[in-house]
Amino acid sequence: MSSTAGQVIKCRAAVAWEAGKPLVIEEVEVAPPQANEVRVKILFTSLCHTDVYFWEAKGQTPLFPRIFGHEAGGIVESVGEGVTDLKPGDHVLPVFTGECKECRHCKSEESNMCDLLRINTDRGVMLSDGKTRFSKNGQPIYHFVGTSTFSEYTVIHVGCLAKINPAAPLDKVCLLSCGISTGLGATLNVAKPKKGQSVAVFGLGAVGLAAAEGARIAGASRIIGVDLNSSHFEQAKKFGVTEFVNPKDHDKPVQQVLAEMTDGGVDRAVECTGSIQAMISAFECVHDGWGVAVLVGVPNKDDSFMTHPMNLLNERTLKGTFFGNYKPRTDIPDVVEKYMNKELELDKFITHAVTFSEINKAFEYMLHGKSIRCIIRMDA
Amino acid sequence: MSSTAGQVIKCRAAVAWEAGKPLVIEEVEVAPPQANEVRVKILFTSLCHTDVYFWEAKGQTPLFPRIFGHEAGGIVESVGEGVTDLKPGDHVLPVFTGECKECRHCKSEESNMCDLLRINTDRGVMLSDGKTRFSKNGQPIYHFVGTSTFSEYTVIHVGCLAKINPAAPLDKVCLLSCGISTGLGATLNVAKPKKGQSVAVFGLGAVGLAAAEGARIAGASRIIGVDLNSSHFEQAKKFGVTEFVNPKDHDKPVQQVLAEMTDGGVDRAVECTGSIQAMISAFECVHDGWGVAVLVGVPNKDDSFMTHPMNLLNERTLKGTFFGNYKPRTDIPDVVEKYMNKELELDKFITHAVTFSEINKAFEYMLHGKSIRCIIRMDA
Repeated sequence: MSSTAGQVIKCRAAVAWEAGKPLVIEEVEVAPPQANEVRVKILFTSLCHTDVYFWEAKGQTPLFPRIFGHEAGGIVESVGEGVTDLKPGDHVLPVFTGECKECRHCKSEESNMCDLLRINTDRGVMLSDGKTRFSKNGQPIYHFVGTSTFSEYTVIHVGCLAKINPAAPLDKVCLLSCGISTGLGATLNVAKPKKGQSVAVFGLGAVGLAAAEGARIAGASRIIGVDLNSSHFEQAKKFGVTEFVNPKDHDKPVQQVLAEMTDGGVDRAVECTGSIQAMISAFECVHDGWGVAVLVGVPNKDDSFMTHPMNLLNERTLKGTFFGNYKPRTDIPDVVEKYMNKELELDKFITHAVTFSEINKAFEYMLHGKSIRCIIRMDA
Repeated sequence: MSSTAGQVIKCRAAVAWEAGKPLVIEEVEVAPPQANEVRVKILFTSLCHTDVYFWEAKGQTPLFPRIFGHEAGGIVESVGEGVTDLKPGDHVLPVFTGECKECRHCKSEESNMCDLLRINTDRGVMLSDGKTRFSKNGQPIYHFVGTSTFSEYTVIHVGCLAKINPAAPLDKVCLLSCGISTGLGATLNVAKPKKGQSVAVFGLGAVGLAAAEGARIAGASRIIGVDLNSSHFEQAKKFGVTEFVNPKDHDKPVQQVLAEMTDGGVDRAVECTGSIQAMISAFECVHDGWGVAVLVGVPNKDDSFMTHPMNLLNERTLKGTFFGNYKPRTDIPDVVEKYMNKELELDKFITHAVTFSEINKAFEYMLHGKSIRCIIRMDA
């Protein structure tokens, strides 16, 4: 065991004291892991839109002070009682949703929506005792989606940690914690294009580009990017996107534009924006007989998906996915191996890098649409 | 070749002269088959709701006089030029949609929606020359969905004929021409319940009962029938239905009733009514993570399918199917074999039988909801 095992660790964390206000690097106290928990030293983290969304306190009960962060890579520092799958020194990726391996979902081959550890954005405490492991001068600081990786040390339920190949560079594979796996899996696990098929990707942010990367890996013949911002198109070429459609450039619905480009419809479509109109277009642009549309983006709570049912009866399939249908502990280590054997390209997603003390810059890059992913190096 | 090959055949047909008026048994002339056509002696036919719907001239451009009928079994009398797959004496099931074996759909493993021979309810003539093969005293009589089986002889495109085991009793397997295959395939080919899973079937008419039969064959642990008419429940037990829900008996939405009965939702749902509300309920009653809902019923043209997109993102799948995803020529012979080897039960669908001259009785049985299927014997 490490010398810190069982002790409170004092370390730096980027604390969000108020909604929308710059994070403050503070010295915090991180309690030891309890039963089925693991304390992890975070080496690299990155910023995902979900962090920004909850930092801005949109559409939820605000919970502050809080330590955000959920895309990261780290090394196990110590483990709590009952943890047998991980030991100090193991390389891990924290995941915002979990895999208890005991519930109906975990036992089903078809689901990754663990009953026990499914994402909970409202909960700011650990499951076992309803308390935080973070504090400053005795004041509790809340967790975020069970990961809180904007801290040099964090405490995570063992079910939310993927044990990965220690040879994998954590400054790259940390991206597989969330967004990249979400888009990649939406294509590879759910849309499942066959070699030579056409794939439309709605939204060319990080998740959409990862969906395109999945289509490239699957051998799609055409990867059509759809985005309202034409400046995204140049960069998308690196991700295998072969054609671009900006719905604003057309008088007719984009589903009709796509159908005309593809002799009746694309074979697969993956929606990565969360816009309800894009969801409907993504569904209606797939070919009858065999087309599959996959929804990834998170909609507004009052949205309604509407389509004529004949679009379904003509043998189209509509599916949604959560975290690319990957089971965090079972599947993510294999995605890391895809990177290691050069099947999956990750480096091209990294457009920026900052030190931990510059973490607010990462927020600025994202808010201004400048970055795909910005890596935050914790030791500097 | 038979002695009638190449000749006009005079025979009895049940002609619909006007919308909604009783059919009239007439002596009609049936021209020889042209290229890629086959003339078939019909031995047994049955009545399906679609015949009644178009006979009543609902929602279409009325086309009369017309010979309806599309669920049937017969024997090839003669074949036109270029027909190599069939010869006189072969036992066949006519199918209202076809399989040309050449188009993108036929070449796709995933689709049965043949570009050339896909159902066309407006067309009353043969594809090759735009003419009818039926006439009376020189007046053309229109075809219906390429089959027109309410005639002792009919002419059908070779792509709409399934060649089946000659040992199969045509008075039973004729049901596989349409409705029974549609429901059976919706479950077996599209919903694909695993052994031990729960299946909800919306609508306990012939198609829904066939969907239930598919669930029975698949080894479903619970088959929950949902119908607004409680009198359908007793009969449904013979088809493996284990539980019943009448939405009228509950104050809450039926999807909620089903979710409460099944610890969060059924594993699979098959919608066989065509009611848009039932379609939405069928989708929303499946379990998150792995639930699959399959739409079979044909909606009204102004209907809109509406649901909250989170229902999809929580890993539910929504699919439509057409003719149970069976390819008529490739797959239907195998379904006949399922009956022959006693895996599939058909006899229980047959509640009535009439002679050809009594065909209007079959319409009455259906209009009054008395029959599942009524077999019409052509030689009497």
